[in-house]
Amino acid sequence: MKKRLRVIGFDADDTLWINEPYYREAEEAFEKLMKPYKAGKNIAAELYRTEMGNLKWYGYGIKSFILSLVQCAIDITGGRVTSGTISEILQLGRHMLERPIELLEDVRPVIEKLSKQYRLIVATKGDLLDQERKMEKSSISSFFHHIEIMSDKQETHYSLLLHHLEIDPSEFMMIGNSMRSDIFPVLSLGGYAIHVPFHTTWMHEEVEADPVSSRFFRVSRLSEIIGIIDGL
Amino acid sequence: MKKRLRVIGFDADDTLWINEPYYREAEEAFEKLMKPYKAGKNIAAELYRTEMGNLKWYGYGIKSFILSLVQCAIDITGGRVTSGTISEILQLGRHMLERPIELLEDVRPVIEKLSKQYRLIVATKGDLLDQERKMEKSSISSFFHHIEIMSDKQETHYSLLLHHLEIDPSEFMMIGNSMRSDIFPVLSLGGYAIHVPFHTTWMHEEVEADPVSSRFFRVSRLSEIIGIIDGL
Repeated sequence: MKKRLRVIGFDADDTLWINEPYYREAEEAFEKLMKPYKAGKNIAAELYRTEMGNLKWYGYGIKSFILSLVQCAIDITGGRVTSGTISEILQLGRHMLERPIELLEDVRPVIEKLSKQYRLIVATKGDLLDQERKMEKSSISSFFHHIEIMSDKQETHYSLLLHHLEIDPSEFMMIGNSMRSDIFPVLSLGGYAIHVPFHTTWMHEEVEADPVSSRFFRVSRLSEIIGIIDGL
Repeated sequence: MKKRLRVIGFDADDTLWINEPYYREAEEAFEKLMKPYKAGKNIAAELYRTEMGNLKWYGYGIKSFILSLVQCAIDITGGRVTSGTISEILQLGRHMLERPIELLEDVRPVIEKLSKQYRLIVATKGDLLDQERKMEKSSISSFFHHIEIMSDKQETHYSLLLHHLEIDPSEFMMIGNSMRSDIFPVLSLGGYAIHVPFHTTWMHEEVEADPVSSRFFRVSRLSEIIGIIDGL
């Protein structure tokens, strides 16, 4: 059985490095920018609504997020938002793109070890350029064969990925912090999946019940995945 | 020699389908939106400068373009641009994303024929979601093995692509309308390249001199590439 596993896919944001807290910080900064306009709306809820409405067109990543912030600012202020505030929103986005990378605990040793036995890839929904930039800054890029950018992480997108990698689902394992994006679709195709929870999860990624599958695992520390993979 | 060619990469925008004229139209619409502000600046030149300044951070594609339009509107009006105008700029972007696909001449029969003998991929710099959407609308998606999104198309990016595809440069041919992005870097690595000029080329993609290489070809119609590939 062990020999069968060939490719291990890692989610990037909040699995390899910190990401979601930066979005939360940007959202808080956005709420502050909106405060003087006294829009009297639930800003977080309006922003989420805007993002969901744009998802089909813009997809995921920081550029989509900034575009949604600009649109949301215009909407909730009924057009009263100034170009100065919009400039500040663009700056929020730029700040996110410029942030240094903070690798999560255990990432470097775990990735280094696994890369000796398996082909590792990064499978992520963000912008390619942004993820490449993070990867370069991360000091772990040499352990990955390549980065796979996915427009979404539903079952159909993983099917395309496996076709592209030319492997069977049983030869693939996905590791990530989102049950919805990293775990369920992979299990459903017949692959392995290990859930590594992160303390902050975007509302859009939340699900309720756990899957029932012998190919599903959950760890509280990334280093525990070594034992699971060795034991397959 | 013929057996050696294994993968043919096609640029997407302005090689498979019309793209650049839509950017030109959006730029014209943007200039009209700016007109009432009487900024007295060369709007096209300012926009190009903004785009070049953002390229490192935003990369290519429609979302980057819209973000640059918003920033440029604020800059050239000295902050006088209204949120109403910014909304209209966001709408320009949405309109671009919603446009139907217009395949260029010969594309469908040529792609169909080549797909029987070679692995075809799309290698493009745009947004993945946008390119997937175009591909789905195009009726030619089944002839391609997959889409490769590249953050840029310099030699180093093609090296990564070839590594990812696990082929030698001599097993790869690139077909596209940009000398700078589709032809020069591939020739330089040792691959084959066929230039299919398009009537409109973005300033950023323009170059002057032609390469001297027996692996370089230029055609005036896409259908001519069949004869070249058969004759290798």
